[in-house]
Amino acid sequence: MTDQHPFDADTAVTGSEPVFQATISDRWAVGETHANGGYVLSVCLRALERVLGKPDPLAVSAFFQRRVTPGPAEIRVDTGRSGRRLATGEARLLQDGQELVRVVASFADLSQASGPTLVSGSAPVLPPPQDCLDLFSGELPRESELVAPGITGRLDCRTPKLPGWRQGSPSGQARAEFWMRLAGGRQADTMALPGLVDMAPPAVFELGQYLSTTIELSVHVRARPAPGWLACRVSTNYLIDGYHEEDFEIWDSTGRLVAQSRQLALLG
Amino acid sequence: MTDQHPFDADTAVTGSEPVFQATISDRWAVGETHANGGYVLSVCLRALERVLGKPDPLAVSAFFQRRVTPGPAEIRVDTGRSGRRLATGEARLLQDGQELVRVVASFADLSQASGPTLVSGSAPVLPPPQDCLDLFSGELPRESELVAPGITGRLDCRTPKLPGWRQGSPSGQARAEFWMRLAGGRQADTMALPGLVDMAPPAVFELGQYLSTTIELSVHVRARPAPGWLACRVSTNYLIDGYHEEDFEIWDSTGRLVAQSRQLALLG
Repeated sequence: MTDQHPFDADTAVTGSEPVFQATISDRWAVGETHANGGYVLSVCLRALERVLGKPDPLAVSAFFQRRVTPGPAEIRVDTGRSGRRLATGEARLLQDGQELVRVVASFADLSQASGPTLVSGSAPVLPPPQDCLDLFSGELPRESELVAPGITGRLDCRTPKLPGWRQGSPSGQARAEFWMRLAGGRQADTMALPGLVDMAPPAVFELGQYLSTTIELSVHVRARPAPGWLACRVSTNYLIDGYHEEDFEIWDSTGRLVAQSRQLALLG
Repeated sequence: MTDQHPFDADTAVTGSEPVFQATISDRWAVGETHANGGYVLSVCLRALERVLGKPDPLAVSAFFQRRVTPGPAEIRVDTGRSGRRLATGEARLLQDGQELVRVVASFADLSQASGPTLVSGSAPVLPPPQDCLDLFSGELPRESELVAPGITGRLDCRTPKLPGWRQGSPSGQARAEFWMRLAGGRQADTMALPGLVDMAPPAVFELGQYLSTTIELSVHVRARPAPGWLACRVSTNYLIDGYHEEDFEIWDSTGRLVAQSRQLALLG
């Protein structure tokens, strides 16, 4: 266990269908007390991977009902249709007997995907990572809840220039493009992508809004990522009465779109 | 019952928690044999509305595991957290004892929403509906499965100019803007919006792709729509190995965004 990467060690589940056990780690904390939603989702997907018999979490939706805290958790799974192409199941994460998160996912084998390809969007255009700045270096705004030790230690994020919020003056433009990878050299696979879309600083930081709670997150994994840095694009276009969406794209080092997500979140 | 609009009559459920009954109507058919996914979703939301105690389906995710056909259906509901702001629950639609669709939704009372608003997108710019063309007039491509009687009779869609697919020459650009409303004068409320995002012709028709099956659809209802026509924007940017997303926006007659959706679908 000692040489496992934190992503693998901290998302591990034990047990067997229909009940798995996990230990929520404080290494993926946001703020002092709760676990990042993308990390919690990754734990739930580990349990689903065990029962669904296909490798790639193609379509995932997570409803975050209550905050998850470090410590023991139980994951109850339930399987739906298992067909030739897709297998669908559900995972509910509980702590102290209370349901906190509910995830439904359809798994597939993306190596078997075949059909037409037509892409009209394009990857973020970024200088090489070695020519970019570390997004998390120096002192982070305390109100952002990005305190150490926590999720900022689990990610490498590189940005062409520091965003306004890193310099105390949010730009008012809730969008960003940057490089990301898991810290410590673990390559992102399709099981890591649904969590990664919720791990970087939210786009609304650039609106001076540092507290936002995810209500629902849906992720579509579009391809298996090649090794290397991931080019990310995040944006929020509609903040309405405190509710806002956040769209996130991840492109691999060969310029292929590998994941797309949208979440609905509430400020405060 | 006779003066009920088809949307209300055909989405009605009877029974009580945790099991409701519905009759899937052939009035919302796509092709000869199966019901439109947005319509089926609307039936599931009716059951959830009955148990969740809040009026607006704020965040909805539906996994379409098998096609639904006209005839009796059972909807089994299960409630998660019910808090001050949000109530979350799940509905599974079954026919002949087999689960076909699984929906998770968080309901809220959008009239109670308060917080900052900042919108950087804008509504489709369209000529008035009376100056537009009926998208469904004349003969429709047989391969589109838009055969009468069926869903095209339930919707009014008005377009500034006929898209390529309506004229036998898809443009290759998988995007469109048009007006939409329920046929027969029923105004769209927040309960109608999650279904409407999946009822118009898919963006991939403009790629000459007339058969596409939704895997997962997530909808975020952003505001209660004002009466009148709805301005819609649909696009698909990434068709990869047969899988594609479709993004859909609905704006009300006062120019406010009222719903946003994304689905992952598979051609063929």
